[in-house]
Amino acid sequence: MAVKVFVYWSVFLVLGFVHDSVIGRPLLIPNARRPNPDDAASFARWLVSQSSWGVLNTISNEWGGAPFGNVVSFSDGEPDKGKGIPYFYLTTLDPTASNALKDPRSSLTISEYSLGTCDKTDPENPSCAKITLIGKLKLLDGKSKDAEFGRSALFAKHPEMKSWPPGHNFEVYKLNIEKIFMINWFGGPKPLTVEQYLQAKVSAEDITF
Amino acid sequence: MAVKVFVYWSVFLVLGFVHDSVIGRPLLIPNARRPNPDDAASFARWLVSQSSWGVLNTISNEWGGAPFGNVVSFSDGEPDKGKGIPYFYLTTLDPTASNALKDPRSSLTISEYSLGTCDKTDPENPSCAKITLIGKLKLLDGKSKDAEFGRSALFAKHPEMKSWPPGHNFEVYKLNIEKIFMINWFGGPKPLTVEQYLQAKVSAEDITF
Repeated sequence: MAVKVFVYWSVFLVLGFVHDSVIGRPLLIPNARRPNPDDAASFARWLVSQSSWGVLNTISNEWGGAPFGNVVSFSDGEPDKGKGIPYFYLTTLDPTASNALKDPRSSLTISEYSLGTCDKTDPENPSCAKITLIGKLKLLDGKSKDAEFGRSALFAKHPEMKSWPPGHNFEVYKLNIEKIFMINWFGGPKPLTVEQYLQAKVSAEDITF
Repeated sequence: MAVKVFVYWSVFLVLGFVHDSVIGRPLLIPNARRPNPDDAASFARWLVSQSSWGVLNTISNEWGGAPFGNVVSFSDGEPDKGKGIPYFYLTTLDPTASNALKDPRSSLTISEYSLGTCDKTDPENPSCAKITLIGKLKLLDGKSKDAEFGRSALFAKHPEMKSWPPGHNFEVYKLNIEKIFMINWFGGPKPLTVEQYLQAKVSAEDITF
């Protein structure tokens, strides 16, 4: 009897932890519900709101105008209040912000692989979703309501930002989206306008952080 | 005595699994040894060889020449045989490859956050390493030795590529690296030439997959 209890208890612990170690999420945060890939607008909003970082691309000042990607954290809003527009906290000590002040053309690329929900497929497999938001990267006036929204959005998901060094002069930037490129299944990119994306219904069940 | 064994066994299982669920790696692959961040060349090679995907940036044909980032898998060699140069398996059905055939300027961006070794820091925190390799993205002659090396490198780390549809005409591309931008600690990007990077000593202990 004791052996039976011992075995069941071990199996219980192992299964619980294997699930989460394969998924790659800390144990205490439940996975949000992944929308149907055919619902392109809701799916795109889910992917953006669930993600905390991506690669922000700008045209480099130096390096012969090469497209320069940089790892950045971002947020589209406080949990349950995401609007789909990514906000960033950048310093011109870093090339990305100084590039954008000269040439605002930009894109933000996010992979579902980072969420741990790709079910062991290859990151380049179309069933592992990816999205690139293309547009203009803009510095916001620090006193504006938009910057205030951005700071709330960013600090809710990236609390350590509040203590980043004042001397680095971090400021709020946002990406004004003009085009969306998203692949979440076989058959090529999903048709999706910016308007459809911004107006997508996103239920509270879809967003947790 | 039985209770003591039970408790110790449970703690053993929990600690083992919590470690890996927080780290985010499958249980059976041990973490490779992370080099000292001051050893910029070895650290950069470790980050590239440990990673399986990144964001590959090109200048878009459409979309007003915006820098376009796309999620791609890559490989710099078979395990223990990485050379530091990323190879890709791309189709011109996808914008990245068709962009590169017109304008080869490109960069590949990789975040250590994807490896699960950032110890709970924010992805934008400098102690969570990131690297961008800047250069020219080139299509290889499918019959060349270089393409053969590329295929071995890619298929070793991304076995499902072997069965990707022939009709999509996937071909091997590589990034000829001209500049390296890497941040792995506070204090700005690490000085690192391409030559230092390519010639870095990388021990077998540093690379597992």
